[in-house]
Amino acid sequence: MPSLDKSVVKPAVLTIFGATGHLSRNYLLPALYRMDVEGLLPPGVRVVCVGRRDFDARQYLDFVLDKSKNFSGIFSEARKGRFLKHLDYYRGDFENERSFAGLARLLDAKEGSGHHCFDRLYYFATSPEYFSPIADILKKHGLLKSCKKHERQIRLLVEKPFGFDLNSARKLNRQLAQYFTEAEIYRIDHYLGKETVQNLMVARFANSLFEPLWNRDHIDHIELSVLYSDRVGGREYFDAAGALRDVVQNHTLQMLALILMNEPKELLTGHIQDEKVKVLAALRPFSAATAAGAIVRGQYQGYAKELGRSSPAETFVALKTFVESPRWDGVPIYIRSGMAMAKKVTEISVHFKEPLRCLFRNCSSNILTFRIQPDESVYLRINNKIPGFGIELRQADLNFSYASSFRGTIPAAYERLLLDFIQGDQRLFIRADEIEAAWRFVDSIRKHWGKLPLLKYQPGTFGPKAAEDLIKRDFREWFTR
Amino acid sequence: MPSLDKSVVKPAVLTIFGATGHLSRNYLLPALYRMDVEGLLPPGVRVVCVGRRDFDARQYLDFVLDKSKNFSGIFSEARKGRFLKHLDYYRGDFENERSFAGLARLLDAKEGSGHHCFDRLYYFATSPEYFSPIADILKKHGLLKSCKKHERQIRLLVEKPFGFDLNSARKLNRQLAQYFTEAEIYRIDHYLGKETVQNLMVARFANSLFEPLWNRDHIDHIELSVLYSDRVGGREYFDAAGALRDVVQNHTLQMLALILMNEPKELLTGHIQDEKVKVLAALRPFSAATAAGAIVRGQYQGYAKELGRSSPAETFVALKTFVESPRWDGVPIYIRSGMAMAKKVTEISVHFKEPLRCLFRNCSSNILTFRIQPDESVYLRINNKIPGFGIELRQADLNFSYASSFRGTIPAAYERLLLDFIQGDQRLFIRADEIEAAWRFVDSIRKHWGKLPLLKYQPGTFGPKAAEDLIKRDFREWFTR
Repeated sequence: MPSLDKSVVKPAVLTIFGATGHLSRNYLLPALYRMDVEGLLPPGVRVVCVGRRDFDARQYLDFVLDKSKNFSGIFSEARKGRFLKHLDYYRGDFENERSFAGLARLLDAKEGSGHHCFDRLYYFATSPEYFSPIADILKKHGLLKSCKKHERQIRLLVEKPFGFDLNSARKLNRQLAQYFTEAEIYRIDHYLGKETVQNLMVARFANSLFEPLWNRDHIDHIELSVLYSDRVGGREYFDAAGALRDVVQNHTLQMLALILMNEPKELLTGHIQDEKVKVLAALRPFSAATAAGAIVRGQYQGYAKELGRSSPAETFVALKTFVESPRWDGVPIYIRSGMAMAKKVTEISVHFKEPLRCLFRNCSSNILTFRIQPDESVYLRINNKIPGFGIELRQADLNFSYASSFRGTIPAAYERLLLDFIQGDQRLFIRADEIEAAWRFVDSIRKHWGKLPLLKYQPGTFGPKAAEDLIKRDFREWFTR
Repeated sequence: MPSLDKSVVKPAVLTIFGATGHLSRNYLLPALYRMDVEGLLPPGVRVVCVGRRDFDARQYLDFVLDKSKNFSGIFSEARKGRFLKHLDYYRGDFENERSFAGLARLLDAKEGSGHHCFDRLYYFATSPEYFSPIADILKKHGLLKSCKKHERQIRLLVEKPFGFDLNSARKLNRQLAQYFTEAEIYRIDHYLGKETVQNLMVARFANSLFEPLWNRDHIDHIELSVLYSDRVGGREYFDAAGALRDVVQNHTLQMLALILMNEPKELLTGHIQDEKVKVLAALRPFSAATAAGAIVRGQYQGYAKELGRSSPAETFVALKTFVESPRWDGVPIYIRSGMAMAKKVTEISVHFKEPLRCLFRNCSSNILTFRIQPDESVYLRINNKIPGFGIELRQADLNFSYASSFRGTIPAAYERLLLDFIQGDQRLFIRADEIEAAWRFVDSIRKHWGKLPLLKYQPGTFGPKAAEDLIKRDFREWFTR
């Protein structure tokens, strides 16, 4: 694993709002703690956690450690002590602006009496309705100001959900734009921090083998499956969103953009987003006529019982769409995502066309599969001769597994993205126009929600039968390994 | 392993000339015996072995079993007894034509008193100087005649070396043509019976992924290595031929033809050979000017001592050539073959060009490797992201191994080809014009032999340093796994 060049990281204060919430306890603090254990937390970085509860830093850390099992294997008193040196806690209530009167003083104090102006990094790990109020608090208390002595960078990281439709996302973008420039806003999708998702760009653009074939002439169809075996377990957050907004709008469409985009001019912020947004903007919106045959909504049996009431939330969605571009015109893209599925797997499969002529009895499609999780791998299905007399063919998989090919740990997505945020690398974050293009497409689905039945399916299956029919009508099948 | 449909095999008498020689004892009889054990020797097939020594069938089989270790694991008295039912022995001396007076009677007797006319299959497992005399004997004794009662097919299988240069090969072709039609002549190269060599056609034409890239636009260079770790051990046969004629003229050029040929119209005899011969005929012949920098001859230290005298025979040859066709123009083909090498391996590697632009620090070539022996495999080297922070690339191999992917035994090349011969399937055999085209190219090398130094090399290496220089001059390297 390439080590971090800590010398290039400028000192910074990372302030996390929503520090006692689910996300902070289960993802952010474990990621920061693990980074510290692994020597990846730059020494000049201080972390200030902001919550409503009355804690000091040690009490807060105990609270986090107590609530979470995400520290197993890395916890020790000594490590906790070291991590505490990075950590501070500030008690503040977003609904009481004056409770933040002391925050500026604390952050200033973190910078010490040296001649430094630390970068100010803000992490809004809260519900989006607080984004604007918090930004306002930051502004009123002088926390977005530049520094008198030297240059200081301000950065904001915001969590999903970034809006619940195009209008709300636009509003959120407009609100944040009052306080931050686009170059300062880091919209996170933790899937972009996953190794295999990052590898999509490498696989496509560092290899000469695939790019010449990466178009409508050679590719038959593309499939994305984001399947979870867990049930929802009555989580209100999921119920308010549903699978389409919770998974498809962000993770799935981001992966789709990486799989279909043109090669960026350079591997730089802006160039990557420029190409992704072109794909997202070219997704064919659904009309009433096209929605009926191309979208399936489902909810697993027992969902309402878990929730304690009936609900219109979909726990499964499958759809067929197209990207309207010279490169992809006419290539169907099949997407499905669901909870309580027969297995947990996230995979992208690129199905190549069969040879125009087949010299043999059966020339099946070549399939390139990126297994995002679990068991991160790349598979290439090709036809080989079965050993023996005659010339019989069988599909065989060339494969490459991360675990067996790379020693050492694969860094968690959150660690990767936190470090990029700390270092000011915006390449793996999402730009305002991408968010809006994704919502525009998702809204075109949701517009027809009411007319599409919410089909029940058995937990432990691959969703309603209609999802099978959706792809079988095209003489194809869902494909996961 | 697909089983043989024995019902379609017509009854036949297979007559092997040279039955007490090295080839028969070490390859043919073990292959036939093994086929019988595996139930692959069609019941209607009788085998008549012809040799100069005075044996009956049982004595002959004892002689074969005694001399060879190739029956280990499959020998039992019961199996021997069963195999003997197929087997007969005839004593004949090629230099005494009259000694074959009784052969026709024996072969007729083998057909029994039924209303059948068995196919007559002749295997010339002798030195080529006997091919014409034996054919003459067959003719004189009425062994090439058709049958009065029904149709009978005549087939001839001839072993390498098929000539020692273009002229001698032509002469041999002309001689055989006096007795046999081209459709009756099966020129064997046992490499064509190897599973991984047969898979070359499948890999190329049953997969849509490779063929669009299989040309000068996408391929940087191609490499064939046929390396043996064994020493020659003073074998006069090898000494008379040398590595160029013993390995390159046949095995290597046949594999090259399969790798470079256009897709045959159908997977039929004739169509395959039509395409192979186009490649062989398009090999650029060497001139005095091109030979000097593009051919390396070597002989390992100690070779003369093993032989008991000094010798000009090369035990190693490396060369760079081109195929002059619109598809392959300008794509260098590097070939090397040697004895007493650092390892035993036969591999074909297709090196794709690097991406025109590399977004990353280093986009190495994709390499598709067919490992012919040992450990039959297909490898595809691609660039992947190394897990960790930053975007560092590393080459990783997608791979597919025969042993781990297919259960059961891989049939030996000789069994495969013997069965094809028995069944009258000529697709994996070599046509007269292919032999001649290969010799034409090899003669253009041998013409300059005298001007090229015979470089000494240490056994257990990859040949003389000049072989490294040959490819390094082009900023490339020999590549084996």
